[in-house]
Amino acid sequence: MREQARARLDALAKPPGALGRLEDLAVQLCEIAGACPPPPAAPVEVYVFAGDHGVLAQGVSPWPQSVTAAMVRTFAAGGAAVNVLARQVGASVVVVDVGVATPVPGALDRNVRRGTADLTTGPAMSVSEAGAAFEVGRALAAASTAGLLVTGDMGIGNTTPSACVIAALTGRSASEVTGRGTGIDDATLALKAGIVERAAARVRGADPMTVLAEVGGLEIAAIAGLVSGARVPVVVDGVIALAGLLVAATIEPAVLTRVVAGHRSTEPGASAVLDHLGLDPLLDLGMRLGEGTGALLAVPIVQAAARVITEMAMIDDVLA
Amino acid sequence: MREQARARLDALAKPPGALGRLEDLAVQLCEIAGACPPPPAAPVEVYVFAGDHGVLAQGVSPWPQSVTAAMVRTFAAGGAAVNVLARQVGASVVVVDVGVATPVPGALDRNVRRGTADLTTGPAMSVSEAGAAFEVGRALAAASTAGLLVTGDMGIGNTTPSACVIAALTGRSASEVTGRGTGIDDATLALKAGIVERAAARVRGADPMTVLAEVGGLEIAAIAGLVSGARVPVVVDGVIALAGLLVAATIEPAVLTRVVAGHRSTEPGASAVLDHLGLDPLLDLGMRLGEGTGALLAVPIVQAAARVITEMAMIDDVLA
Repeated sequence: MREQARARLDALAKPPGALGRLEDLAVQLCEIAGACPPPPAAPVEVYVFAGDHGVLAQGVSPWPQSVTAAMVRTFAAGGAAVNVLARQVGASVVVVDVGVATPVPGALDRNVRRGTADLTTGPAMSVSEAGAAFEVGRALAAASTAGLLVTGDMGIGNTTPSACVIAALTGRSASEVTGRGTGIDDATLALKAGIVERAAARVRGADPMTVLAEVGGLEIAAIAGLVSGARVPVVVDGVIALAGLLVAATIEPAVLTRVVAGHRSTEPGASAVLDHLGLDPLLDLGMRLGEGTGALLAVPIVQAAARVITEMAMIDDVLA
Repeated sequence: MREQARARLDALAKPPGALGRLEDLAVQLCEIAGACPPPPAAPVEVYVFAGDHGVLAQGVSPWPQSVTAAMVRTFAAGGAAVNVLARQVGASVVVVDVGVATPVPGALDRNVRRGTADLTTGPAMSVSEAGAAFEVGRALAAASTAGLLVTGDMGIGNTTPSACVIAALTGRSASEVTGRGTGIDDATLALKAGIVERAAARVRGADPMTVLAEVGGLEIAAIAGLVSGARVPVVVDGVIALAGLLVAATIEPAVLTRVVAGHRSTEPGASAVLDHLGLDPLLDLGMRLGEGTGALLAVPIVQAAARVITEMAMIDDVLA
């Protein structure tokens, strides 16, 4: 399939290789679909998994836990950044409560537990809860009829469990993977890095589902499941999604064949995962919002790759 | 306007600065329009200016001159990369014959002369012809009702005059600004760099319109005019468009306030202009096709910036 796709790209009305990464993406889309030209990378669905985090009690974020539910309501009302960018690229937003602390109307109710426990004082959740959240994502991917999936997240405090998972599964130090999230000060950053260091040390060497349960989060688990269950290309977003992808890829490296890294978040943990998995994002726009925003902006590029190999004229016809 | 835009961005339902360069773009769009929120960056028109080049007689490209007209016919038929990407982002393609060697049906006929003369043996064109081609672009921009303009080009051999213009107006050496274009071998690259070195030396210190006439091209002049005449944001493409922008910005630096660099072409002359003008492209996807393809892929990002500052909910409403 790779050779067939490359041969077709080289026969299009352009110098070989002149479309750069669009050509590599086109090859990947053909490989995923097992067809050249590939199907259009549409319709597009962004799954925004929301969860709360017991570690917030340690003061790792300036935002209160109630903001998670408030933002879920904003997603349902169409007023958040993810909604705006989804409208721009023609994507549907599916908001999934997989672990919000309070019931939230307007979200798909797949709540596994009402927020994780404080990961500094014990497991964030049980292994069976982590498995259930993983299964939420996996089942949604399996049931989806979209041609392209996008990962999204919401959860006040969720850069902390993401950093814990990333440190544990990449072997990087806490200082390399811990960032400022929504914009914390130096003292909070030091506190957060200390939490990440102790948490990662506790689970280093453990299997990925144990890591997820001990120091992860419910939305991270659901994203891991979405990536695992996808049968179509998946554009992954920032550090939370990359923590989920890291879990999924550690369990089953073949998931990476379907993954497109959308955007390089400024969170250091994001670059740690990208390096670890050998991914190079399409965009680098200095974003760090999550929700799926960075990945959504990469959607037109993925769709363009599918169109180019499908719709362009052949050079022999042009020169005839 | 800048302060008003920043204040609005900081009041949206996200941490300040979390949308990175999207926020900078939103500020720029407000400044261009003199309104916050700004108008949508739509509808979009990509102007593909086509011209031929007498310097092709020196063997600077493996492609024959007839390919310019053949590609213009392909643009008119909708089968080229620029057409495919324009469909992806909802842009209209306007193909303009400003200097093709032979008449081409399907293009807007604004032919100033049937290809330039060989710039190695004399001026590529007269100053009045360069001015006429510049005016073609300027008049089209002035008459356009688009909310966003995109620059495009077609012209076999046109990376050579682009490199000449760039060397002359930036002061960079020929070896720094001369690239492989459609993919030439080492011997042809050395020949091309020698041509650029001698041409740039001939006009160094001359005014921009003289540089354009002596060593430039008709499509480069038209792009310079389009950028000069635009009253809305202009997304610029690769090395040919950047040579045109360099001419326009050397004449009137204020044009840069309306310019968004779309994509970093792999052609070294492109990076030379970007550095010289202090521009940082939105995309870096290893493309080097021209036609406006790199710039078109940046269009959804520019439109997303306009949408974010217009459509997002306010954080105070979310937390209320």
